[in-house]
Amino acid sequence: MPKLRLALSQIDPWVGDLARNSAEVVRWTKQAVEAGAQLVAFPEMALTGYPVEDLALRGSFVEASRDALVELAGRLVADGLGEVPVVVGYLGRSEHASPRFNRPAGSPQNCAAVLHRGAVVTRFAKHHLPNYGVFDEFRWFVPGDQLPVVRVHGVDVALAICEDIWQDGGRVTAAREAEAGLLLVINGSPYERNKDDQRLELVRRRAAEAGCTLAYVNMVGGQDELVFDGDSIVVGADGEVLARSPQFEEHLLVLDLDLPAASSDHTDGLLLSDGLHLVRSELPGEPQPALAGKPVAEIAPRLSDEAEIWAALVSGTRAYVAKNGFRSVLIGLSGGIDSALVASIAVDAIGADNVHCVSMPSRYSSEHSKGDAAELARRTGLHFRTVSIAPMFDAYMGATELTGLAEENLQSRLRGTLLMAISNQEGHIVLAPGNKSELAVGYSTLYGDSVGAYGPIKDVYKSLVFRLARWRNEEAERRGEVPPIPENTITKPPSAELRPDQMDSDSLPDYDLLDSVLARYIEGDEGRDAIVAAGFDPAVVDRVVRLVDTAEYKRRQYPPGPKISVKNFGRDRRLPITNRWRRG
Amino acid sequence: MPKLRLALSQIDPWVGDLARNSAEVVRWTKQAVEAGAQLVAFPEMALTGYPVEDLALRGSFVEASRDALVELAGRLVADGLGEVPVVVGYLGRSEHASPRFNRPAGSPQNCAAVLHRGAVVTRFAKHHLPNYGVFDEFRWFVPGDQLPVVRVHGVDVALAICEDIWQDGGRVTAAREAEAGLLLVINGSPYERNKDDQRLELVRRRAAEAGCTLAYVNMVGGQDELVFDGDSIVVGADGEVLARSPQFEEHLLVLDLDLPAASSDHTDGLLLSDGLHLVRSELPGEPQPALAGKPVAEIAPRLSDEAEIWAALVSGTRAYVAKNGFRSVLIGLSGGIDSALVASIAVDAIGADNVHCVSMPSRYSSEHSKGDAAELARRTGLHFRTVSIAPMFDAYMGATELTGLAEENLQSRLRGTLLMAISNQEGHIVLAPGNKSELAVGYSTLYGDSVGAYGPIKDVYKSLVFRLARWRNEEAERRGEVPPIPENTITKPPSAELRPDQMDSDSLPDYDLLDSVLARYIEGDEGRDAIVAAGFDPAVVDRVVRLVDTAEYKRRQYPPGPKISVKNFGRDRRLPITNRWRRG
Repeated sequence: MPKLRLALSQIDPWVGDLARNSAEVVRWTKQAVEAGAQLVAFPEMALTGYPVEDLALRGSFVEASRDALVELAGRLVADGLGEVPVVVGYLGRSEHASPRFNRPAGSPQNCAAVLHRGAVVTRFAKHHLPNYGVFDEFRWFVPGDQLPVVRVHGVDVALAICEDIWQDGGRVTAAREAEAGLLLVINGSPYERNKDDQRLELVRRRAAEAGCTLAYVNMVGGQDELVFDGDSIVVGADGEVLARSPQFEEHLLVLDLDLPAASSDHTDGLLLSDGLHLVRSELPGEPQPALAGKPVAEIAPRLSDEAEIWAALVSGTRAYVAKNGFRSVLIGLSGGIDSALVASIAVDAIGADNVHCVSMPSRYSSEHSKGDAAELARRTGLHFRTVSIAPMFDAYMGATELTGLAEENLQSRLRGTLLMAISNQEGHIVLAPGNKSELAVGYSTLYGDSVGAYGPIKDVYKSLVFRLARWRNEEAERRGEVPPIPENTITKPPSAELRPDQMDSDSLPDYDLLDSVLARYIEGDEGRDAIVAAGFDPAVVDRVVRLVDTAEYKRRQYPPGPKISVKNFGRDRRLPITNRWRRG
Repeated sequence: MPKLRLALSQIDPWVGDLARNSAEVVRWTKQAVEAGAQLVAFPEMALTGYPVEDLALRGSFVEASRDALVELAGRLVADGLGEVPVVVGYLGRSEHASPRFNRPAGSPQNCAAVLHRGAVVTRFAKHHLPNYGVFDEFRWFVPGDQLPVVRVHGVDVALAICEDIWQDGGRVTAAREAEAGLLLVINGSPYERNKDDQRLELVRRRAAEAGCTLAYVNMVGGQDELVFDGDSIVVGADGEVLARSPQFEEHLLVLDLDLPAASSDHTDGLLLSDGLHLVRSELPGEPQPALAGKPVAEIAPRLSDEAEIWAALVSGTRAYVAKNGFRSVLIGLSGGIDSALVASIAVDAIGADNVHCVSMPSRYSSEHSKGDAAELARRTGLHFRTVSIAPMFDAYMGATELTGLAEENLQSRLRGTLLMAISNQEGHIVLAPGNKSELAVGYSTLYGDSVGAYGPIKDVYKSLVFRLARWRNEEAERRGEVPPIPENTITKPPSAELRPDQMDSDSLPDYDLLDSVLARYIEGDEGRDAIVAAGFDPAVVDRVVRLVDTAEYKRRQYPPGPKISVKNFGRDRRLPITNRWRRG
């Protein structure tokens, strides 16, 4: 039985930066070769980053990606890395028309290639295209219709891309028909709570269906609203986990696999399951020299639910700031729990010295709020200043008559304007503090507390905000560090402090109740009647449903933020703004 | 040869308002029956409005639509309209699974039905699903696989939905195979400049291919960013235009058609072109009584290019304001051409008495700007007030150090905050004045001049802004009315007036040059090299391309506005915010 030393490169590609991504492939391949790897794999569209959205429709970008692929093959040779076959995802195009989708020859495809000895040994395109949730791949791509099988070191390795294994049949069944010894799947699979469990379940089932070992390599990092958690896995045909990468970290997973030898009587060009054509490739020259040393098969431990979410929020924030060319952030600190949590995330993402905060009290700000904001700054070491909005408020109130909600919103907008002024003056990117419960019901001020380029907790319900704050403090205590968030910030009742003695509970149901209804209505897509039937107070349900239905415009204007749930208020859920459907 | 009196109801459905849309179908059917019609057709998804976006994925909405369809059939009978067959679009669901798209039975479909004598005689779903530009129909729907043919008054009428005729083959070819006497197509086809020419060309070609008369009914009005221009058409198999509805107006087109009698030897259940199954329906009872009177076949004249665009901007604005539950708008009037044009559009859309404007001068505002704003108000009769932003500006400048761009943006944001304060106080919806050239290159202030719920000229390049302003004034003169836009507003050089003697030309290329490069880069999807090869100055192209590539976040945050071009900055063009691709 041949042995194959496989390396899975769990990296963070940057969308559009072909030069950087190519250099990263070279750098990680070098590490893999140093570890004796005989086959190296990178994630889906690692060369272009993922998802590239409508950049896929720009011909010059497709050509640049194809050129970069060929250059990369040459560069690997130039760097002495030509002997190891490298599987890498890129943006390509179809050689033939796809009448089923009314698309001409040359249409973009989500591709991958095997590079070896300076040549592109084989190219293929994703077969199953996801077109739900955050995915729009029928918009961008036409599907591929081949099953590539590459003989590496005497083993037949079948290749697939991400969604190919999330749907039944297709390349999984075809890999079995082709009697592959290994099914290698490259992925750009975004994070979602508990998806690691789902993913493990899936790869086990698919390995059994393919009848061979399955290796799954995923990316990490963040791209706009998506966060990638890595979690690369290798399982045997019997479902045994042979190796697993850590979550949310760049990582090279190297392991030795005992795999069945390819039989010698295979023919090429067979038509397999689901209309897939078998395309075999044989690598030129001798197989690579025998292996030096032996890697320890590693099974990284899983993070707890809170730790996993925290890591998603931190890596999404870090990636967004860095990939958009910023080094520092600016946050308005109210003394409340939302902005405190956002500041803590920012400190973990880019370090306290890059986090600038400003307290912007009005006449309605309580003493404890000002004190709690300052206390958080003291505990974390972030930069902190105070600028009162009283003079600006007086100037507006003197110029035009404002009462009630107009007066409340004004204060929030004065703060937004001040944050943007400081941002423009000093070059920080503004983070918005809104949570998912507020966004759902429209309990925020457009151009006020919604100001910012990124909202780290926009997909986090308020009840989870509290849970994460407590968890982060406990985590600090476990590590013997100072808990970042002042206890009073966590325990006091939430208030926007835009009028005397205002409490969130004046306007909204208790957050635990609100969040339960929201989770059913948003994530569960349950209608009003179904939620009432589950035992909730009809008056509360009607109120919540009405608020959610009418807040779509506000949500659309909200900055992007890291997606952690099955349905976020960004790419996942796309409702009309102009919408008279008001019955859930 | 049988005669058939056909009525095409070019109406404006409201997304989500099933009760209103049902009532409209009844009201228009009544008019059609009074005109002696024997067959009445309504647009695509007229019962739910179109597009419903992710509402399609909400099961309770699908069921409500299906129930509303059945209720509508009953209501037509109750109102004495049961004898005329009515074709109406609705949101339905599939009876069987669609393994090709990995979707279960019960998945949503873009459907239409024929209602007659209180019954749903036949139901079918759109066969070709558009999934490009503004359309995401593979996300929402599974395709239908039937060709419905209904025998009406002795004529075999084949039915199709919108995209079914924009792609080759499918129901067009199948209608010929089924020997249909009329191909009736219901549409939700959004406006785009010159699309009426394209549409006429298309229906002529498809009529020839189907070998029969083709009747095309489209909707009017606006839904979020989409504007529907109507332009319903009937053409003979020889391409002759038999009737055509006016653009942008609700309209009932009634005409008598001489059509071939259906042959009696047809069988049901045939498998036609593109896998379509023939499903024939026979209406119960006697055909309708002989016709009273005779309608005059009407061919409405086409609008000029400017008049057509103007109508699109006006109807988009009118629909957005009304359908979101507002009666009045608020606009910041600078004295410049953009806000002047937006105010003129608003006056035409909802009447001067519902248009409120505010001049918000700073220390850098010129006397002519203040005068020009007041002059526009005088000419149009809109409500006008002046509020200086000087005290607010001084309050900010006293609180924190701001220079350069931060100081410029501050002024714009103070105006945005003032507009929102008045909006909240008085209940007007704010219109944003940004044009497409500015949005393209990011020449605007986030939370400043971008404030608003709708941007009437966000898809209008600056050079077209000038053209439309001149056209609107000339049009007023032709009608013997006062031209709304002061001459000085049109002739003076554009300036943001955020610092002394500032001119747009300090920061941007001449607008005609800028717009030429932008049209190639945005609408044409040409890369940097291709634009340079077409003869443009490489330095200008590089600058423009760089500006466009880095302004995506600002554009995403901009309010929606009426789409008039082949690619707008809304649903049409979906680029990543985090994007390091910087070579065009």
